[in-house]
Amino acid sequence: MAQMSTLNDLLASILERGARLVEWSSPKTEQNRSIKDLCMMLMSSKGEASGVALAAQILHRYDAFDARERLSFFQLLANDYDIDADRLSMAAAAYTADRSGGALKALARAATPRRQELLRRLNFAPGGTHALVQMRTHLLRLLREHPELEPIDTDFHHLLSSWFNRGFLVLQPIDWNSSALILEKIIAYEAVHEIDSWEELRRRLQPADRRCFAFFHPAMPDEPLIFVEVALTTGIAGNIQEVLAGTRDVISPGEATTAVFYSISNCQEGLRGISFGAFLIKQVAQDLARALTRLETFVTLSPVPGLTKWIRDEARREPDGLAAEVAGAIADLAWARDPARVEILKPKLMTLAARYFLDVKRDDGQPIDPVARFHLGNGASLARINWMADGSAKGLAQSAGIMVNYLYELNAVEAYHEAYAEERKIQSSKAVRALLPKA
Amino acid sequence: MAQMSTLNDLLASILERGARLVEWSSPKTEQNRSIKDLCMMLMSSKGEASGVALAAQILHRYDAFDARERLSFFQLLANDYDIDADRLSMAAAAYTADRSGGALKALARAATPRRQELLRRLNFAPGGTHALVQMRTHLLRLLREHPELEPIDTDFHHLLSSWFNRGFLVLQPIDWNSSALILEKIIAYEAVHEIDSWEELRRRLQPADRRCFAFFHPAMPDEPLIFVEVALTTGIAGNIQEVLAGTRDVISPGEATTAVFYSISNCQEGLRGISFGAFLIKQVAQDLARALTRLETFVTLSPVPGLTKWIRDEARREPDGLAAEVAGAIADLAWARDPARVEILKPKLMTLAARYFLDVKRDDGQPIDPVARFHLGNGASLARINWMADGSAKGLAQSAGIMVNYLYELNAVEAYHEAYAEERKIQSSKAVRALLPKA
Amino acid sequence: MAQMSTLNDLLASILERGARLVEWSSPKTEQNRSIKDLCMMLMSSKGEASGVALAAQILHRYDAFDARERLSFFQLLANDYDIDADRLSMAAAAYTADRSGGALKALARAATPRRQELLRRLNFAPGGTHALVQMRTHLLRLLREHPELEPIDTDFHHLLSSWFNRGFLVLQPIDWNSSALILEKIIAYEAVHEIDSWEELRRRLQPADRRCFAFFHPAMPDEPLIFVEVALTTGIAGNIQEVLAGTRDVISPGEATTAVFYSISNCQEGLRGISFGAFLIKQVAQDLARALTRLETFVTLSPVPGLTKWIRDEARREPDGLAAEVAGAIADLAWARDPARVEILKPKLMTLAARYFLDVKRDDGQPIDPVARFHLGNGASLARINWMADGSAKGLAQSAGIMVNYLYELNAVEAYHEAYAEERKIQSSKAVRALLPKA
Amino acid sequence: MAQMSTLNDLLASILERGARLVEWSSPKTEQNRSIKDLCMMLMSSKGEASGVALAAQILHRYDAFDARERLSFFQLLANDYDIDADRLSMAAAAYTADRSGGALKALARAATPRRQELLRRLNFAPGGTHALVQMRTHLLRLLREHPELEPIDTDFHHLLSSWFNRGFLVLQPIDWNSSALILEKIIAYEAVHEIDSWEELRRRLQPADRRCFAFFHPAMPDEPLIFVEVALTTGIAGNIQEVLAGTRDVISPGEATTAVFYSISNCQEGLRGISFGAFLIKQVAQDLARALTRLETFVTLSPVPGLTKWIRDEARREPDGLAAEVAGAIADLAWARDPARVEILKPKLMTLAARYFLDVKRDDGQPIDPVARFHLGNGASLARINWMADGSAKGLAQSAGIMVNYLYELNAVEAYHEAYAEERKIQSSKAVRALLPKA
Repeated sequence: MAQMSTLNDLLASILERGARLVEWSSPKTEQNRSIKDLCMMLMSSKGEASGVALAAQILHRYDAFDARERLSFFQLLANDYDIDADRLSMAAAAYTADRSGGALKALARAATPRRQELLRRLNFAPGGTHALVQMRTHLLRLLREHPELEPIDTDFHHLLSSWFNRGFLVLQPIDWNSSALILEKIIAYEAVHEIDSWEELRRRLQPADRRCFAFFHPAMPDEPLIFVEVALTTGIAGNIQEVLAGTRDVISPGEATTAVFYSISNCQEGLRGISFGAFLIKQVAQDLARALTRLETFVTLSPVPGLTKWIRDEARREPDGLAAEVAGAIADLAWARDPARVEILKPKLMTLAARYFLDVKRDDGQPIDPVARFHLGNGASLARINWMADGSAKGLAQSAGIMVNYLYELNAVEAYHEAYAEERKIQSSKAVRALLPKA
Repeated sequence: MAQMSTLNDLLASILERGARLVEWSSPKTEQNRSIKDLCMMLMSSKGEASGVALAAQILHRYDAFDARERLSFFQLLANDYDIDADRLSMAAAAYTADRSGGALKALARAATPRRQELLRRLNFAPGGTHALVQMRTHLLRLLREHPELEPIDTDFHHLLSSWFNRGFLVLQPIDWNSSALILEKIIAYEAVHEIDSWEELRRRLQPADRRCFAFFHPAMPDEPLIFVEVALTTGIAGNIQEVLAGTRDVISPGEATTAVFYSISNCQEGLRGISFGAFLIKQVAQDLARALTRLETFVTLSPVPGLTKWIRDEARREPDGLAAEVAGAIADLAWARDPARVEILKPKLMTLAARYFLDVKRDDGQPIDPVARFHLGNGASLARINWMADGSAKGLAQSAGIMVNYLYELNAVEAYHEAYAEERKIQSSKAVRALLPKA
Repeated sequence: MAQMSTLNDLLASILERGARLVEWSSPKTEQNRSIKDLCMMLMSSKGEASGVALAAQILHRYDAFDARERLSFFQLLANDYDIDADRLSMAAAAYTADRSGGALKALARAATPRRQELLRRLNFAPGGTHALVQMRTHLLRLLREHPELEPIDTDFHHLLSSWFNRGFLVLQPIDWNSSALILEKIIAYEAVHEIDSWEELRRRLQPADRRCFAFFHPAMPDEPLIFVEVALTTGIAGNIQEVLAGTRDVISPGEATTAVFYSISNCQEGLRGISFGAFLIKQVAQDLARALTRLETFVTLSPVPGLTKWIRDEARREPDGLAAEVAGAIADLAWARDPARVEILKPKLMTLAARYFLDVKRDDGQPIDPVARFHLGNGASLARINWMADGSAKGLAQSAGIMVNYLYELNAVEAYHEAYAEERKIQSSKAVRALLPKA
Repeated sequence: MAQMSTLNDLLASILERGARLVEWSSPKTEQNRSIKDLCMMLMSSKGEASGVALAAQILHRYDAFDARERLSFFQLLANDYDIDADRLSMAAAAYTADRSGGALKALARAATPRRQELLRRLNFAPGGTHALVQMRTHLLRLLREHPELEPIDTDFHHLLSSWFNRGFLVLQPIDWNSSALILEKIIAYEAVHEIDSWEELRRRLQPADRRCFAFFHPAMPDEPLIFVEVALTTGIAGNIQEVLAGTRDVISPGEATTAVFYSISNCQEGLRGISFGAFLIKQVAQDLARALTRLETFVTLSPVPGLTKWIRDEARREPDGLAAEVAGAIADLAWARDPARVEILKPKLMTLAARYFLDVKRDDGQPIDPVARFHLGNGASLARINWMADGSAKGLAQSAGIMVNYLYELNAVEAYHEAYAEERKIQSSKAVRALLPKA
C-alpha cells in the first residue's frame, strides 16, 4: 500500500500540469504568427528552447479550428513535412551501392517524414497526447474524401502505436466509486448495449456481481481507452436482457463460477488500428481468477452483427435455399412476437447461424463476422449459439435475436490462437457443430 | 484535488502489476526453451496471444545473464533482427523507379530493423521499460569493444526517445516526505557534490530554503530520471561549501530573491543521449517563480570540469605563456593553503578561466567545457566566475577551486539560445569579460 | 504534494477495514447469544480481549433489527446502563462532606452513565462511527413517543460532540471528479433547492463558476456531514432561478467578485444539535478568498421559511392590519401570475418582510426565522430583501417569493457575532431598514 | 482500489490545513493579549465566531513557552477552569433530594470541569490534536513535583481516551516506501532494541521477511502512535541478535510459518494510559494470517526487564538462597564471556527466571514483570524462556541475557485473557513449568 505513495504524488503532477495548458499557451508575442510559422519555429532550434510553450500554442490554436482550417493544417503536414523524395532516392541509391552502416542510417532517416518529429514535439505540451489522439480522429474522418492524407495517418499510427504500447497501459476497475467524469464517458462510449441513464449505469457497476474494467494511459488519465463489462454468474448467460434486468437476485462474488464478458467498447476513435481488446480480456480474466477462487469459466455474451445481412445476401444467391425461406419470414420483426412462427423458425435460424460461423469464409479464410474474428483470433472458442438471446429491436434486426458465447479457456487460449492464426482453424463446441446440417 | 483520485487509482495498478513480474514470468512450459526461441515466439503470431508472459519470461531470463551471455544476446539482436539488406535494396530500387505511396511505405518498412518491434514487445512485460533502460546501459558499456553493436543502440535510442518524450515526464518535488526508496537513489545518483549520509541528504532536502525536483516517467515510478538541487537565497551564491554548510541561517522561502541550482544529476545511464536537463531547469524555474513571488534570479553554481586540464594542455602548447606559469604553480594542491600564493595566483587563474570560457573553442565553435555547452546551449549566460568557490580536493584538482554562475533570465533564454545555436554567440556579463586581457 | 502520501496510505486502510465488517462480525460461537449478553461481554474484561469483533457483532445484529427490536434495544440501554442513582447519591454526599479530589473523581464517575462506555466500545467496530450516527437517527425518531429515552440521547450527543470536534473535520471540494457514491448523496441530501437529476447536479458542480464544499469525518469518508453550494458571480444574486438556470453565461472564476452561498444542507440527521454550518461558511469563504484574489463579497441567497406563516398569524392577531390585508391577497398562488396584483402587493410584502426580520422577536430576543437566527448568529448582516427571488411553488408558498441575502464581512463577522450573542443586535443594511414603515 | 480516492482527497486536506497553522494564528489584533484573555475569549461566545483562529493563536503562543510559563499555564487551567465546588455541592444535594432527570443532568454538568470544554475548543486549531498530546507530555513531567495538577491530567486522559478510540485508529505498514519523515520517527521511538543508523533501519524494514506496522490517528498523520516489528521465520526465534543480524538468509514470506513480534514501542508519551498494544498485536496477527496462509504461530521475543533486579532483591531477602548465589556471580558482566561460568549458571538462572514469572506476584496477584503483565493480560501464554537470547550489555544487565517468547494463539487468546483477568491464571508451556524446582 505504501508503494502507492510515489505514484500518487507523481501523477498528481500530471493533472496539475494539464490545468496550466492555457497558461503555457499564450506567450503574447506569438499571437499573430501563422500556424505554419509556429510549426517551423517548433522544428527549429528554437523548438528546443521553448518547445513546451510552442507546442501548447499550436495545439491551442488547432483546438479552435473549424473543418476547413483543419484540412489546410493537414495539407500543411502533407506538403511541408513529407519525405524529400529526391533525397530518399539518392540515399537509396547510395545504400544499394555500398551497403555500409552509414548509408543505411542515412537511408532510414531519409525514409522517415519530418512530420513524425513535428508530432513528437507537439506532444511536449501538457495534454498533448490526448490532443494528438483527437487530431487523428479528425484526420480519419477526412481520409475518405482526402485519400492523399493517408501518409499522415501512417505517421500518426506509427507514433501512437509506440506510445500506447501495452507496457504503458494501466488496467483500472470502474465502479460506483469512480468519478462522474469517468463514468459519463462510460455512458457515452458504451457501443454494444446502450446505457440510457445513470440508474442503468449503476445497475451495471454497483451490484456485487457486476464488474467493469478499463485500460488507461498515464498521459490521459481521464480518458478510458477501452472497457469491458462483466457479469459474475453461476452459469453461462444466454440472454442479454436477463443480464441487464433491473430486478434480479444479486449473488455473492465468492459464489460465482463464471465471468460473462457481455460488452466491450473502444473509446478513442483516434486510436483506431491499435488493438487493446485481447490484452484487456486476458488480464481481466487473470485478475478475476486470482481474486475469486471459484471462478473457472470465462465467456463472452456477444452480438452477431452480420447474421441477417448474410442471410439476405445468401437468399439472393440461392433463391431456393434455406436462407431464402428464412429471409422472407423474418423480413419484418413481427415474427418474434408470434410463438408459432418462432417455434418454426428456431431450428432453421440456428442452423443458418452455425453455417454462418463455421462454414462461411472471407477470401482470407476467416469468418465474415467481425466479432467472431476478434474473439477467435484471440484464442477463444465458439461455445454456444443462443436462441432469443437479445429480444431488442436492434438484436432482432441484426441477428434475429441470436447471440453467442465465446469461451476463453486460459490454458488453451494460446494453442487455439495459434491454430487460428496459422490454419484458420475455428474451435467450436460439439453443441454448436451439431447444429450444422448432417453431411 | 479531487482530480487526483483518478490518477491515484490508476497508478496504484502500475505498481501492483510490477509486483507480479515473477508470477507472469514462469510459465513452466517455457523453462527449457532458449532465449532465441522465446524471442522468435514473441515475434510470431503467438506473441499476440501471450505477449506479456513471453516478454516477462525473456526479461527475467536476461536479468540473470552474466556478461558473456549478455553479449551473445546482443549478437542475436544484431544478427537475427537486423534489416534485410537485399529486401531494402530492392525496395529502394522500386521506390526510385515509381515513387508511389505504396513503394514508399514498403521502403520505410524495409529500412526499419525487426529489432525495433522485438524491443517494443519486450516492453509489454510489467517493469519492461526499466528493464530495457538497464539493457541499454549494458549495451553502452559493450560498445567500445564491440562497435558492431552500434546499430542496436540506434534502435534503442530511437525507441527510448519516443517513449521518454517530454510530454510523458512528470516533475516531482523530492523532500523529506519522499520515500526512503526514492531518497536512497538521490544519494546514489548525486554526481556533482557527493551525499555521504542521510544527515547530509536531510540538510539538502528538509530546510525551508532548500528544494529538489526530479523528472519521473510513469512506467518507472520508483526511478528518478534526472534531478536538480536548489538553494533559495537572497543573493547569488559563489561558494559551494557555504551552500552545503551544516550550520547556517535558514531563510524563509518567501524572502528569497534568488534560486541557485547547485547540482544537476542524470540518474539513468541507459537514457544517455536523451536530454532532459533543459526542460527540467526551465520548468523548475517557472514553478518556483509562480510559487514564490519575490524570486527573480535563477542561476546555477556550476563546476568547471575541464579548466586545469586545459591549462596543462595550453602549457604544453605555449611553454612560455601564462598557462605554463600557472600550471606549474598549481601542480600540487598545497598552493591553496598558502595565502601568499593564493593572492598571486588569483588574477592569473581568473584571466585564464575567462579565456577558457570566452576564447577557447572546439572545431564546432562551442566552448570546450561540457557544462558550459549545456547551460549556454539552454540559453543561459555566463554571469560570474567565482574564486575559491569549491575548496574540496576535487574542486581544486579540476578547476583550481573556481566555479561559475550561469544565469537563466526567463525572458531572454529563448533569444540567447537561438544566438548560441545559430552563431555560437556566448552571452556573458561585463564582469566576466573584464577578466580577459586587454586587447 | 509529497506530504499526501502518508495520509493516503493511512486512509486506504480505513476503507479496507470497513470492507471486512462482515468478516469480523461472525464469530460462530456468538451467533446464539442475545444482544443483552453480547453487550455484557463487551463491557466485561472480555471486551478488552475481543472488543472489535464483539462490537462488530452487536452492530451487525442491530442493523437487522426492526422498529420493535430497536425500541427494546434502547430500553436495554436506558435500564441496564444508566447511572446508579444510589451510588451517585452517596458519592454526592461524600463529596459535599469532604470536597477532596478523590471524592470529586468518584462523584464524576458516578455521574456518568455506563452507557457512554458501551457506546465507546461499540465504536471499536469497523464502520462503528457511522453505525452509531445512524443509531442516534433512530433514537431521535423515537423520542417523541418515548421521552423516557431522552437520557440516552444526552449520552449520544455528548460522545458525538466530542468525536465530531471541528479539529477532526475535513473540508473537501465536491465536483465532477468526485465519486458517484458521494455525488448521489449530494442529490439525496440537498434540502433547500432540490436536485432532480444528474444533469441538474452537473449544472451545479461542473461549470467553472460553481463550487461545492463539504465537511467529512475521517471515520466516515463516504458520508458528507454538511455541504454548501456556491455561485461565483460579479454581483449579489437576487433570484434563485437565475442562479440555477440551465442556460446562462459562465464567467471565469478569476473575474468573480462575489461568492453567493445559495444552499446549505445538513446530511446526517443523527448529528442533530452538533453544529458545523458556521465553521463551514467561514472556512469556505477564507479558502475562496485565498484562491481567487478578486473575490471580496461573501453573501448568501437564503430562503425565508416562516414569512407567510407569520403573516397569517399576524393577520389573526390584528384583523385590520397590513398583514391581514396581504394574507388574504396571497392565500392562493395565482396572484403571482398577475402583474397588476404583483405590483400592488410588492411594497406591502416588502414592508412586512422587513418587520418580520427586524421587529418581530421570540421570547429570547431572537428573530423567529430559523435561517435568520443561524446567519445572524454567525455574525452575518441582513443585506438585502429580494422581491420575486424564488418563483417556485415552494418559494411562493413559504415566503411569497421573497429571499434574502445575508452578508459575511470577514472583518466584521466576529464583532457582529458578539453584538448579536450579547445584545441580540441585528446588523442590517440601510436599504433593508428603509423598508420599515416610518416611525 | 477506486474506493481510496475519496479518502485520499479527504486527507490531503488535513495536511494542507496543517500547513496553514501559522497563517491562522496571527490575527494582529490579538498579539498583545495575555493567554488568559485569549482562553477567556475562546470560551466566550466569541469562541464560536472565531474559534479556529483563537485556538491556533493560543497553541502557537503555548508552543513558545518555557518551562516556567508552561507551569503557570497549567496553573491557570487548574484554578480558573476547575469545577465550581459550591455549585457541584448544591447540584448534588438537589439530585439527592429529588432524583429527577433534570437534576441529574445539572449534576453531571456541575461535575465536569470547564477545562474539558477549553481543551475541546483548543482542538479546533489545525494540528490541535498533536499539540494537545504534547501539552499532556509536558504536564505528565510536571506531575511529580506538582501533584496539584493531577485533576488537569484526569481531563486530558478523559478527552484523549475518547478521541483515540480504537475505532479511529488506522493500522499502517511501515516499510522502505514510507517517507523519511515517518521513518526517522521509527528510529527515534524504537525503545526496545535501539536502531542506530538508516542501514540498521533498512535491515528491519526492507527484507521480504521483515514487517513493521503502526497505528496512526487521522488527525496526526505524520505521527505513529505505537509500532511493532515482526520477523517472519520458520521457527520460534530464541535469540535477538540472530533476528537482527546484518547477514542472514532471507526467506520468502510465503514459506514463513511463524511471525515473531520482536519489538513493540509506544511513540507518544502524551498518550500514556491509553493502551493500543493489545489491539495492535491482534490486528497485525489477523492481517498477516490472512495474507500469508502458511503462518500459524504468532509469538513475541520479549525482554525481561526486571529479572536481575528481582534476583538482587531476592538475594537481600534470603542471603543463603539460590538468588543470592547467582546475584554474586553475575554482578559484573564478565561471566558471560566465560563458557565455564555460563555452563554452571545456566540451570540456576533458568530456574530463577521460571520462578520470577510463575511464582512471584505483586499484591494484586500479577507477576512483577511489566512486559509479562502486558502480554499475559492480552491473553498470551508464556511459551519459552531462552538462554543467551540477548547478549548485549543491556540484555545481560537487565536479564542475564534471558528473553522469553509469549505465544498468541488466536483461538485461545480470549479464554486465556479472561482466566488471567478474573483469576490471575498464567498460561505457560510444559517446558517453562519444567524449569521450576520440583516441589
